[in-house]
Amino acid sequence: MNRPEPQGSGKDVAPVPDISPLLAVLNYFHPVTPEMEAYLKKHVTSMSVRKRKLLLKEGNFSDHVYFIVKGAVRGFTREGQKDITTWIVVENELVSSILSLNQRIPSIENIQVLENTELLVIRNDDLQQLYELIPAFNHVARKLLQHYYADAERRAFIARLTKAENKYRHFLLHHEPLANRIPLKYIASYLGMTLETLSRVRKKFSSKT
Amino acid sequence: MNRPEPQGSGKDVAPVPDISPLLAVLNYFHPVTPEMEAYLKKHVTSMSVRKRKLLLKEGNFSDHVYFIVKGAVRGFTREGQKDITTWIVVENELVSSILSLNQRIPSIENIQVLENTELLVIRNDDLQQLYELIPAFNHVARKLLQHYYADAERRAFIARLTKAENKYRHFLLHHEPLANRIPLKYIASYLGMTLETLSRVRKKFSSKT
Repeated sequence: MNRPEPQGSGKDVAPVPDISPLLAVLNYFHPVTPEMEAYLKKHVTSMSVRKRKLLLKEGNFSDHVYFIVKGAVRGFTREGQKDITTWIVVENELVSSILSLNQRIPSIENIQVLENTELLVIRNDDLQQLYELIPAFNHVARKLLQHYYADAERRAFIARLTKAENKYRHFLLHHEPLANRIPLKYIASYLGMTLETLSRVRKKFSSKT
Repeated sequence: MNRPEPQGSGKDVAPVPDISPLLAVLNYFHPVTPEMEAYLKKHVTSMSVRKRKLLLKEGNFSDHVYFIVKGAVRGFTREGQKDITTWIVVENELVSSILSLNQRIPSIENIQVLENTELLVIRNDDLQQLYELIPAFNHVARKLLQHYYADAERRAFIARLTKAENKYRHFLLHHEPLANRIPLKYIASYLGMTLETLSRVRKKFSSKT
């Protein structure tokens, strides 16, 4: 990943990104102190990424954490020639490859932008330094990680269901805003079913409501 | 869940459980201070659970976190009449239902002991108080949660693979000690394959080595 180029205004000053959507999410979990806010303002940058671009390619190291201001992003992996969507997220979600980030091993997944997307970005090294410099940030992150860990369990749960209707019911329960926004081929892949099965299940569900 | 009864020695003093295996694991992630250790010694209890007993039943609330000193534990959920194993862990692992614990909602999973098992137990309320009383414990927990979050992603990843051989290869890579210890019906269920398929794949793998 290249760092985003500062979009010069002619003056020799890098633009300060608006990190308020990120602060709002962090504050939802635990109060962000002025000291944390100042650190984040200094180290968070913004970037725009065009639809279909990769934020992370398998085999590479995950060294950034992204926050989606606007847009949609998926994780996917490959099994032979098959492309398997492992998660799909939109605005106000944090995105990274926890497996690679945590263990400093090459990523087994790809991260791809599904719509033209506005992101906030922090380098993992800066995040690690934040944990050391302002230990209270561990309190924010602990609560955030509990939430993301629970999300990962929920994804593992959906993946283990065997009946297409049960899978789609759970998907609607937790991801309803995605159902009419994300191309169906990604949703079908995420749910481990063919596009035909997904269409059939969707028809059934829409005739019920 | 009933709290374990203190095993009286005739004197009016509850026995102090040996929490050193738990401390060793926490210390592996981040240094445990004497203050944290004293708090844990005061609030952690021990219990023995017989093979096949449930630690948590779906529909109930998860209000304890367990540490396995000796034994094996699985999570499972039900889809109709089908019993689906969602994880299997052994010694030195922490066990709870993060979904229920985090959101204070009834559990969608069951937790069952697979062997006669020795556990250390902390009540979630005591854990939450620890985060507030000794904020530095958030640093320990943040690192621990990163690890467990990565584990959950790995489980979701295995569940999404479609080929039985790829699933079993990943299982061996991350859970080899379980392969000859846990009854095969649970491993087959965890990997989303029939017992017959698992046996066939195992034969193939053992003839390779």
